[in-house]
Amino acid sequence: MRNFITIEGCDGVGKTHQTRRLKEYCEQMGYDVVFTREPGGSDIAEQIRRIILDAANCDMDDMCEAFLYAAARIQHLKDIVKPALRQGKTVFCDRFVHSSYVYQGLGRGLGLDKIVQLNRIAVGEYMPEFTVFLDLSPEQAFMRKGGADKSDRMEAVDFSFHQQVYQGYKALIQAEPDKFEVIDASGSAEQTQRLLRQALARRGVIK
Amino acid sequence: MRNFITIEGCDGVGKTHQTRRLKEYCEQMGYDVVFTREPGGSDIAEQIRRIILDAANCDMDDMCEAFLYAAARIQHLKDIVKPALRQGKTVFCDRFVHSSYVYQGLGRGLGLDKIVQLNRIAVGEYMPEFTVFLDLSPEQAFMRKGGADKSDRMEAVDFSFHQQVYQGYKALIQAEPDKFEVIDASGSAEQTQRLLRQALARRGVIK
Repeated sequence: MRNFITIEGCDGVGKTHQTRRLKEYCEQMGYDVVFTREPGGSDIAEQIRRIILDAANCDMDDMCEAFLYAAARIQHLKDIVKPALRQGKTVFCDRFVHSSYVYQGLGRGLGLDKIVQLNRIAVGEYMPEFTVFLDLSPEQAFMRKGGADKSDRMEAVDFSFHQQVYQGYKALIQAEPDKFEVIDASGSAEQTQRLLRQALARRGVIK
Repeated sequence: MRNFITIEGCDGVGKTHQTRRLKEYCEQMGYDVVFTREPGGSDIAEQIRRIILDAANCDMDDMCEAFLYAAARIQHLKDIVKPALRQGKTVFCDRFVHSSYVYQGLGRGLGLDKIVQLNRIAVGEYMPEFTVFLDLSPEQAFMRKGGADKSDRMEAVDFSFHQQVYQGYKALIQAEPDKFEVIDASGSAEQTQRLLRQALARRGVIK
């Protein structure tokens, strides 16, 4: 879908910071943009999100969770993304279907095929024109954080989970290289922002 | 899935009454059965159901609703149906995937293919061994009710909707006749119950 751009990356890559800076830049430049993330101010999507995040719902089936994320995504599209695109705005969405593919399909082991199929039904033609991938491996993100206690069991579990997620992103990019702008996020925040804007300029999204 | 039986039919066919009588009979006979319907006492499924049914959520996207029904279905399977089947019980479920096929896929016009695909991912191997279809056309159900005001616009809309649902059920049955027990529900409640029990006896579910 033209003018619909999603931003993806592993946890700790600096996605929130980079997205905020990009938003500030676009606003300064007077571009007609909308920055959003699910549930993004959609009331129904927010209600769905609350069920997912409620700690009391720890018995939730993983696939039930995947369906709830997809349901919230559909409503967020209807309430926020589609109206903005109809008005000719450029929409940047922080995480979208690719997060579900790698976190639920691969990380949770539900199967990439099922999660892709599910989200294809959910979003229909509303696939991003392209996806910005902020590229930093979990090892690099870990080093940047100053390292955590490696003997901590949870930290170890998380680490292999995040490696799986990262490899999943890499596989998706390899399968459809034209659909991604891979941004080296291993440098300073300044450098990453510069690379990001250069990529968006190459795609004709900004000048 | 062996010992998993679903019960379907259009609105006004007497499904609730027939199911209750069957339940009483099975309990009298000492059969090890569970009668359920979604969300069926599953706490998480009930929370999802509340979002669907909340009148304030009238802006809900139809496909979002279909995903929420599927999510509640997955959780109801996990919490109620699967444990009962594991214990060797026979499970009767009042409405299941076929209701979604005809009400959402056809009635709401979301497309049968999409709703079938969606529910295949949701329920996996947990498809019913067979489905009881209480067969009464919307015209017959309408006559039985004593007829409503035909000039009422909403009633007219509902009527064509229910005809579509009925034709949808018929098409599903034609596609997989072995997967259905079609019960003529045009006679008295007594007669319908007798036909229902005969069909279940033929399938070896009851004696």
